[in-house]
Amino acid sequence: MSILNMPLIIQDTAAIEGDMGMLWMLISGILVFFMQAGFFLVESGMTDSKNAVNIAMKNFLDIAVGSLAFWFVGYSLMYGADASGGGFFHWGGFIFSQGAADLFFQTVFAATAATIVSGAIAGRTKYTTYAIFSIVLTAFIYPISGGWEWNGGWLNAEWMPAEFIDFAGSSIVHSVGGWAALVAAWMVGPRIGKFLNGKPVEMHGHNQMYATLGVFILWLGWFGFNGGSQLAWGGDDATAASQVVLVTNLAAAAGTLSALLFTWFKNGKPNLAMTLNGALAGLVSITAGCGNMSEGGAVLAGLIGGILVVLSIGFIEKTLKIDDAVGAISVHGVAGVWGTLVIGLWGIDGDAGIGIFNGGGAAQLGAQAIGVIAYAVWALVMSFIFLFIIKKSCGGLRVTEAEEIAGLDISEHGSLAYPGKRQREIED
Amino acid sequence: MSILNMPLIIQDTAAIEGDMGMLWMLISGILVFFMQAGFFLVESGMTDSKNAVNIAMKNFLDIAVGSLAFWFVGYSLMYGADASGGGFFHWGGFIFSQGAADLFFQTVFAATAATIVSGAIAGRTKYTTYAIFSIVLTAFIYPISGGWEWNGGWLNAEWMPAEFIDFAGSSIVHSVGGWAALVAAWMVGPRIGKFLNGKPVEMHGHNQMYATLGVFILWLGWFGFNGGSQLAWGGDDATAASQVVLVTNLAAAAGTLSALLFTWFKNGKPNLAMTLNGALAGLVSITAGCGNMSEGGAVLAGLIGGILVVLSIGFIEKTLKIDDAVGAISVHGVAGVWGTLVIGLWGIDGDAGIGIFNGGGAAQLGAQAIGVIAYAVWALVMSFIFLFIIKKSCGGLRVTEAEEIAGLDISEHGSLAYPGKRQREIED
Amino acid sequence: MSILNMPLIIQDTAAIEGDMGMLWMLISGILVFFMQAGFFLVESGMTDSKNAVNIAMKNFLDIAVGSLAFWFVGYSLMYGADASGGGFFHWGGFIFSQGAADLFFQTVFAATAATIVSGAIAGRTKYTTYAIFSIVLTAFIYPISGGWEWNGGWLNAEWMPAEFIDFAGSSIVHSVGGWAALVAAWMVGPRIGKFLNGKPVEMHGHNQMYATLGVFILWLGWFGFNGGSQLAWGGDDATAASQVVLVTNLAAAAGTLSALLFTWFKNGKPNLAMTLNGALAGLVSITAGCGNMSEGGAVLAGLIGGILVVLSIGFIEKTLKIDDAVGAISVHGVAGVWGTLVIGLWGIDGDAGIGIFNGGGAAQLGAQAIGVIAYAVWALVMSFIFLFIIKKSCGGLRVTEAEEIAGLDISEHGSLAYPGKRQREIED
Repeated sequence: MSILNMPLIIQDTAAIEGDMGMLWMLISGILVFFMQAGFFLVESGMTDSKNAVNIAMKNFLDIAVGSLAFWFVGYSLMYGADASGGGFFHWGGFIFSQGAADLFFQTVFAATAATIVSGAIAGRTKYTTYAIFSIVLTAFIYPISGGWEWNGGWLNAEWMPAEFIDFAGSSIVHSVGGWAALVAAWMVGPRIGKFLNGKPVEMHGHNQMYATLGVFILWLGWFGFNGGSQLAWGGDDATAASQVVLVTNLAAAAGTLSALLFTWFKNGKPNLAMTLNGALAGLVSITAGCGNMSEGGAVLAGLIGGILVVLSIGFIEKTLKIDDAVGAISVHGVAGVWGTLVIGLWGIDGDAGIGIFNGGGAAQLGAQAIGVIAYAVWALVMSFIFLFIIKKSCGGLRVTEAEEIAGLDISEHGSLAYPGKRQREIED
Repeated sequence: MSILNMPLIIQDTAAIEGDMGMLWMLISGILVFFMQAGFFLVESGMTDSKNAVNIAMKNFLDIAVGSLAFWFVGYSLMYGADASGGGFFHWGGFIFSQGAADLFFQTVFAATAATIVSGAIAGRTKYTTYAIFSIVLTAFIYPISGGWEWNGGWLNAEWMPAEFIDFAGSSIVHSVGGWAALVAAWMVGPRIGKFLNGKPVEMHGHNQMYATLGVFILWLGWFGFNGGSQLAWGGDDATAASQVVLVTNLAAAAGTLSALLFTWFKNGKPNLAMTLNGALAGLVSITAGCGNMSEGGAVLAGLIGGILVVLSIGFIEKTLKIDDAVGAISVHGVAGVWGTLVIGLWGIDGDAGIGIFNGGGAAQLGAQAIGVIAYAVWALVMSFIFLFIIKKSCGGLRVTEAEEIAGLDISEHGSLAYPGKRQREIED
Repeated sequence: MSILNMPLIIQDTAAIEGDMGMLWMLISGILVFFMQAGFFLVESGMTDSKNAVNIAMKNFLDIAVGSLAFWFVGYSLMYGADASGGGFFHWGGFIFSQGAADLFFQTVFAATAATIVSGAIAGRTKYTTYAIFSIVLTAFIYPISGGWEWNGGWLNAEWMPAEFIDFAGSSIVHSVGGWAALVAAWMVGPRIGKFLNGKPVEMHGHNQMYATLGVFILWLGWFGFNGGSQLAWGGDDATAASQVVLVTNLAAAAGTLSALLFTWFKNGKPNLAMTLNGALAGLVSITAGCGNMSEGGAVLAGLIGGILVVLSIGFIEKTLKIDDAVGAISVHGVAGVWGTLVIGLWGIDGDAGIGIFNGGGAAQLGAQAIGVIAYAVWALVMSFIFLFIIKKSCGGLRVTEAEEIAGLDISEHGSLAYPGKRQREIED
C-alpha cells in the first residue's frame, strides 16, 4: 500500500514544484518587462532632450511590436519542436503557445534584445528604420540564433569541445543586441557634430538623474532576467536560482566599484556615467555564467567587466570612430563576449572547475569561443543584410540634417519631451 | 491504510496551494500598490507643472485615505457575509478582516478607483473637494457596487441571461472610476483657457518623460491587477493566472500599436501622448475578459481599444466640450465599457465560445450590457449626488480664478514642484 | 505502512515550505534592493540640483561597497555561528555563505543602513569621507549590533525583563542609521547659509516630483523589508507575513494622513514634503512591531509617528541647530525609537497583550527601552570614533567653501545632473 501511495506523493510534489516554477518565471518575466522602463530612462537621460520623445516611442515600439511579433512568429522559430539543418533552424507552427508563463518570459527577453540597438543609434535614425529593424530582430534574428542554444540546437552538439554555456544570455541576448547595435551605428553614421576634425566631441546627455534611476531599474530587472532563467523553482532549483540572484548582485556591485575607481584613478574624479555603465557591464558579465560561477569568481568577472567597458567606450569612439550614443556596444556587446568567455577561464559546474584556471582544461573555453564567434557572425551579417535592404528600399536610414538639428521629437513626432512654453512657441 | 493516508496528502496539497495563492495575491497587491506611482507620473506629466504638487498630494491621499477607509468600512460593504436587497447591499460588521492578503489586495484596488478621478479634474479642483470625494468613493460608492459581482451579488442572479463576467474590473473598477470622472469633470467645469470661442485649446503637459515612465509602471502593475485577480495559485490556477498575464501583455501591446499607427495615419506623425493612452486602453480592454479571451481575441480587443480611446478623447473634448485633463474618462470609462462588452462578442469559457461571433449566442452580450449599464448608472448618479452635496456644503468645488492661474501648488499647498530660485522669489 | 509513509509526506511538505520561504525572501530582497532607488530620488529631490550627481554616486557606493563588504565580512560578524562576549560579538569565518537567499536579503538590509546617513550630510561632505564611513557601517557597525538581536545575541538573554522585539529593524537598521546620521550631521556641520544669525533658513530641494516617486518606491520596497523579515512562507508563516504587509500599509497610510493633517492644521496648508516624511515615519514606526501589532494598533502607531516626525524635524533644526538636509535623523532615528517602544505600549503576541496599555505589564516596555538605549549608545559612540579617525587622517570631513558653493557635482565628480548647455559652458 505504501507502494501505491508513494508515486502519488511524488506526483504531488512534482506538480507543486511545477507550480512554484511557473510562479517564479512569471514574476521574473514581470521584472524583465520593467527593464524596458530602465532602458528608456538610461537612453533618454544619456542623450539630448530634443530626442527624448523619440526614445520613448522606440521603447514602446519594442515592447508592443516585440510582444506581438515574438508571439506570432519568434517563439515558434526559437522554441519550435521541429528542428532542421542540424539544429540551426527551428519550426513549430505559427501562433504556437506552450505554457503561458514561458511564452511571456521569453517575449520580454526578445524585446530586450531589440532595445539595445535603440540607444546606440539615438538622435539621427528614422523612426520607420527602427520600427522595421525592431520587427526583424524580435521575429527572426534573435529567435533563430537563440534556438541554437536554448532549444538544444547545434551549440550543444556532440562535435563541440564541450557544451556551450550561456545561462541567461550574455551572448544570446546581449552580444547579439550589441553587435546589431555596432552595425547599425556604423551604417547610420555619427550624429552631426560628434566628430570634429576626426576627434570625438563629448555630447552630453540631458538628465543624469533619469540615467541613474534607469540603471537601478535595470539592476532590479536583471534579478528576474538571470534568476528566472533557472526556469524552475523547488528543491535544487530554488537554491540554484537564489544563488544566481546573489552572484548577479555581487558582479553588478563589482562592476560598479571597478568602473568608479578606474575613472577616479584615470581622471582624478569618480564619474557617474561610467559608474552606471560599469554596473550594467557587471550585470552583463555574469549573465552567461550566473549558474556556473563561484561568488568570488562572479566578483572578479564583474570587476574586469567594469574596467573593460570604460576602455571599450574609448576605443569605439576614438579608434573606430563610431558614434554609440549611450555605450550600448560596449555594455552589451563587449561585456557580453567577456561574460561568455569567463566561464572558460574560471567557471564551475557544481564543485568541479571547468575553466582553464581552475583545472577544467581548455575545452570549455573553446566551446565558449565558438559560441561567441557564431553569435557575432550571425548578428553582424544579418543586421547588415536587413539594414542594407531597409536603406535601399526606404530611401536611407537617417533623417535629414535639418530634422536632426531640430530634433527627432519635433521632426518625427511633432511634440516635445518638456512642452511648456517652447511647445506653444513652435506651434504659433 | 492508503485510504487513511490519502486525505492527509490531499489536505497537504490544498494547504500548500493555499499558501502559494496567498503569495501570489500578496505580490500582486504589491504590484497594484505601485500603480499609484504610475498614476502620479502620468497625471503630473500630462498637466502643467504649477499643479504637480497637488497631484502628488492627491495620490498620497488616495492611498492613505483609501487604505484606512476601505479597511474601516469599504471591505465590509464589499465582501461582507450578510447581504440584503437581493445582493444589492452587503454588510459584515465594521473592521472585519478575513485574510490579510485578500484585504490588502482589495484595498489597493479601491485606491485605484479613486485615483482615476484625480487626473480628469486636475488643475482647478479644491483639495478639500477631492479629499471628501476620495473617501466617499473608496468607502461607499466603489465597494457597494463591487459586491454586486465579486461577492456573488445580483449580477450573478438566476434571472440574468448569463453570469456577468468582469474578471479584474473593466467595469467594477475602471468604468466606475471613469464615470465618476465624467461627472466630476462636467460639474467642476473646464480649466481657464481650455475652450476658446467654444473650441478646445490643447493644454500641454509639462513632462512627457514622467508620463512615459508612469505608463510603464502602470503596465507593470497591471500584471498584478489582472493576474492577481485569479485569487489563487496552484494547479489549474497557476496556468490560468499565467495565461491572464500573457493576454494582458498582448492586449496592451496591441493597444499601444493601434494608437501609434492610428495617430500616424491620422496626423502624419506617431504621437507619444496617444500611444501612452493606447497602451492604457489596451490594458483596460482586457481587464474584464483576461480570463475569458483567447490570445488572438485579446490582441483584437486591445487593437480596437487603442483606436477607441483616440476617437473618444476627441469626442469628449470637441463634442461634449468636457475638459478631461488626462483622458481618464476615455481610458478608463470608454475602454472599460468596451472591455466588458467584448466578452459577449468573442469571449471564451475554456474551449467553448460564449460570444456572438464564436457561437455562444447573445446571452453573454446581454449580461455584459446589463452590467455595463448598472455600473454606469450607479457611478453617474452616486457621483452626482455626493458632488452636489459637497458643492453646496463647501462653497463650490473649484478654487478661485486667481488661485487657478497661480497654480494649485502655491494656492493649495504653498510650495512648488521645482522650487529652486522661483520658490525663493515667491517667499521674499 | 502509514507510519512509514507519514514522515515522508511531512518531510515533503517541509521541503516545499522551505522552497516557498526562499522564494518569498528572494522576492522581498529584490524589493528591498529597489529601496536604493527610492532613497536616491528622495535625497536628490529634497536637495539642491548642484549636489544631485553626488547623491547618485553615494547610493551606488552604498549598494556596491555594501554588497561586497557585507558578503566579505559583515554577514559573518552578524550571523556567524560562534559567539563571544555573551552574545555581543559573532564570528563565523570570512566569506561564509549559508543560504544564498538569506545572504542576499541581509545584504540589501545592510546597504539600507548606510544610505540613511547619506541624506543627512548631503551637500557638503567629501566623497571619500562618505565612502570610508559607508564601508565601516556595512562591514562592522551595523552587523555587530545586528547580531545582538537577530542572531540570538544578548538582547534575548535570560536576565532581560522580556525578549527584546525588533521584527524588521526599527532599531537595528533605522535608528542605527539615524543615530549615525545625527553624529555625522553634527560633526560635518551645517551647509553654508543654513543658519543665519542662529536661525535656520529653509533650503529648498530641487525636484519634489523625484521625492514623491522616491517615497512611493520606498513604500513599495518596505513590503519586502517588513514582510520578508518573516524569513519564511507556508502555513502560519504565510498568514503572518501577509498580516505584516497589511499592517505595514496601514501604518504608512496613517503616518501619511497624520502628517498631512497636522501640517494643514499647523500651517494652514497641507504640505507635500512633510506628508512624504510622514509616510516614511509611519513605515519606520511599524518596522519593529509589524509582527506584534493589531491592525488598529498599527494605525495608531503610524498616526503618532507621522506627527512625531514633523515635531522632531523642527526640534533638530531650531533647537539643536543641526542641519539634516532631508530629515533622516527624524524619519529613521526618532521614528525608529518610537516604533521600538510602541510594542511595550500596545504590542500583542498572538492574542495576548504584551504592552502596558493592553494588560501585558511593564516588562516588555523595559526590554524595548534597553534595546533602544543599547543601539543608540552603540551607533553614537562607534560613529563618533570612526568619523573622528577619518577627520584626523583625511584632513577633515567636508569639502572647501569654494567647492561647496560650486556644488559637489562639479567639484567632486566633474559633471552635472542636467548637463545641457551649462555643462558645455563650464568646460569651455
